[in-house]
Amino acid sequence: MSITNFQFYNPTKLVVKHDAAPEIADYIAADNIKSVLLVYGQGSVKRIGVYDKVVEALKSKNITIYELPGVRANPELQTVIKGIDICRCHKIEAVLPLGGGSTYDSSKAIAVGACFSDDIKSEQIWECYENKRIAEKALPIYGVLTISATGSEMNNGGVVQNDALKKKWSFGADCLYPKVSIVDPKIQSFLPWYQQVNGFVDAFVHVVESLINIDEPETVETTYAYDISLCRSIINAGDKLQINTNDHVARANFIWAATCALNYISGVAMSGGDWATHLLQHSMAAVDTKISHGAGLGVAFPAFVKVNAMRGLRLKTFDRIAREVFNKQGWQGLIEGFQDMLKRWGHPTTLNELFGREVN
Amino acid sequence: MSITNFQFYNPTKLVVKHDAAPEIADYIAADNIKSVLLVYGQGSVKRIGVYDKVVEALKSKNITIYELPGVRANPELQTVIKGIDICRCHKIEAVLPLGGGSTYDSSKAIAVGACFSDDIKSEQIWECYENKRIAEKALPIYGVLTISATGSEMNNGGVVQNDALKKKWSFGADCLYPKVSIVDPKIQSFLPWYQQVNGFVDAFVHVVESLINIDEPETVETTYAYDISLCRSIINAGDKLQINTNDHVARANFIWAATCALNYISGVAMSGGDWATHLLQHSMAAVDTKISHGAGLGVAFPAFVKVNAMRGLRLKTFDRIAREVFNKQGWQGLIEGFQDMLKRWGHPTTLNELFGREVN
Repeated sequence: MSITNFQFYNPTKLVVKHDAAPEIADYIAADNIKSVLLVYGQGSVKRIGVYDKVVEALKSKNITIYELPGVRANPELQTVIKGIDICRCHKIEAVLPLGGGSTYDSSKAIAVGACFSDDIKSEQIWECYENKRIAEKALPIYGVLTISATGSEMNNGGVVQNDALKKKWSFGADCLYPKVSIVDPKIQSFLPWYQQVNGFVDAFVHVVESLINIDEPETVETTYAYDISLCRSIINAGDKLQINTNDHVARANFIWAATCALNYISGVAMSGGDWATHLLQHSMAAVDTKISHGAGLGVAFPAFVKVNAMRGLRLKTFDRIAREVFNKQGWQGLIEGFQDMLKRWGHPTTLNELFGREVN
Repeated sequence: MSITNFQFYNPTKLVVKHDAAPEIADYIAADNIKSVLLVYGQGSVKRIGVYDKVVEALKSKNITIYELPGVRANPELQTVIKGIDICRCHKIEAVLPLGGGSTYDSSKAIAVGACFSDDIKSEQIWECYENKRIAEKALPIYGVLTISATGSEMNNGGVVQNDALKKKWSFGADCLYPKVSIVDPKIQSFLPWYQQVNGFVDAFVHVVESLINIDEPETVETTYAYDISLCRSIINAGDKLQINTNDHVARANFIWAATCALNYISGVAMSGGDWATHLLQHSMAAVDTKISHGAGLGVAFPAFVKVNAMRGLRLKTFDRIAREVFNKQGWQGLIEGFQDMLKRWGHPTTLNELFGREVN
């Protein structure tokens, strides 16, 4: 991948539609699939009613449902292994994440492990994250996304945390693109504001990390200009949703921007991006799982900018983002604009605020 | 499809890479395909050497090659029917367009006709264009694009001209997305300038037609801002390529912008766009097949803008495009900016210039 040699491939069908969650059963039935593992989190999907609707739709299509509840934010390896065991035991044909990015990321790992041959143990899924095993086959994934943030609904990667090793690592493979993802904008209006902001920040940082690896923005103008427009869309939508969580037009704009932030289109010809901010957050989360992904990124990104700028790196790129996204100048302007945005949305900007205590 | 309910699906793998045309054989062989119909035009692919390289690569993989040469611009139904007959006679397994949009568009129709059951005649492919027949199955398409313009390398539609009926019509179906399209930027630097400009104008008008159906740009901010950035990228790249046809960075930017102009991403949440300018050009071409697609669009688009503006329609949208793309104002500014661009690139702006004679 370089400025003149690049590719784009993404076969996921993304459907953004009000009240459409039950339609996932139609897509599954159309592919003649008879059983699914339903992967969800701490029960919020039951409280808002979407769980019942999806289960009812699956039953009406005679699809057998197995369940894996309890997926947490910063999703955990042991839950994934449990999911793989269930799939292998019952010869389940597809995986259905119902929730946010962590249900998707867990489902991707489960989909791979479910296809392991008999001589491979379920816990060996971790070898994929260690680059010691290649994922060549996976069960198909049909998902319903309830929080736009990670982009996992339309990409081929995922992150899982190994609590025992204190490692939060990622892996990807072409067999992991979800076949269909449905996003119901209305569901997201019920999310707590803090969680919404986590999504805004995650999506924003995905775009910036995609574009930040290039020193001469004008050489990748087509993608660069797109990325700037995505950043602005995310901020515009966030500001509107802070005023009115039921602004469905702003929500739809954010949903699409968040997906595009990590469905690889924001990184076309960008030489792979630079994911240091995400890696920093992953390490924070491995130390303290209560640190939400978006909040950690918000603290890590300005530090990343400063360290680079002090070494004279990426100054032109930082300046351009500062000017075109925040109407400010230079790397200091980028940090200032970014932190103003966090403060306006009520998010922490320092490690002390993040951990809720003094951090050295 | 509306501002809050929309979807995106595009499974084509697009590879932009110097000297990569022969790699198409690798993709075909990987899918275990043993025979292809090679669809090309008037012989320019032989002159520039890419034909020989692709044929050699196919032979090295033991793929049997059948040929359909002679596809013209504004591709013609009779050639398509010939291609369908060849595929049916030899039970060919895939179609390989090697050339510009017209080879792709013809290949798509051939791919559908090749899967007709025995009771359907090859010429009944025209029923697809008349909406009397649905294309449910098609041979897989693996293509090499030599002119970026139509976007056919990464979408599910195509246009064919029925000379007898003087109709140039289109149809699309999900089975028509090419599996893989390879674009070699270097090949395009050898194209005559006039033909390059046809591509720039075609891509530009695709973007504008995608976005022009919306009266309130701010309600589809994410896609709108992207579309504006695509228009600007196309103009920037065109101006650079006019100075230096070997500017590979500008070429790569244009190639990706032209693909995105009609791989549906520029139309997400845009309620389907408004394709009046394309329909006007199709009618011109049906009357005089020598009128190139890009040149016809260049003359038709300002007329479309004027007719709408005189009725008070889309004024806000025209004004925004004028401001953000051309640094001008109002619908007059949009027409002026667009025609300045055509003149700068040496393209006709009036029907008289287009037909090379007085037209009433």
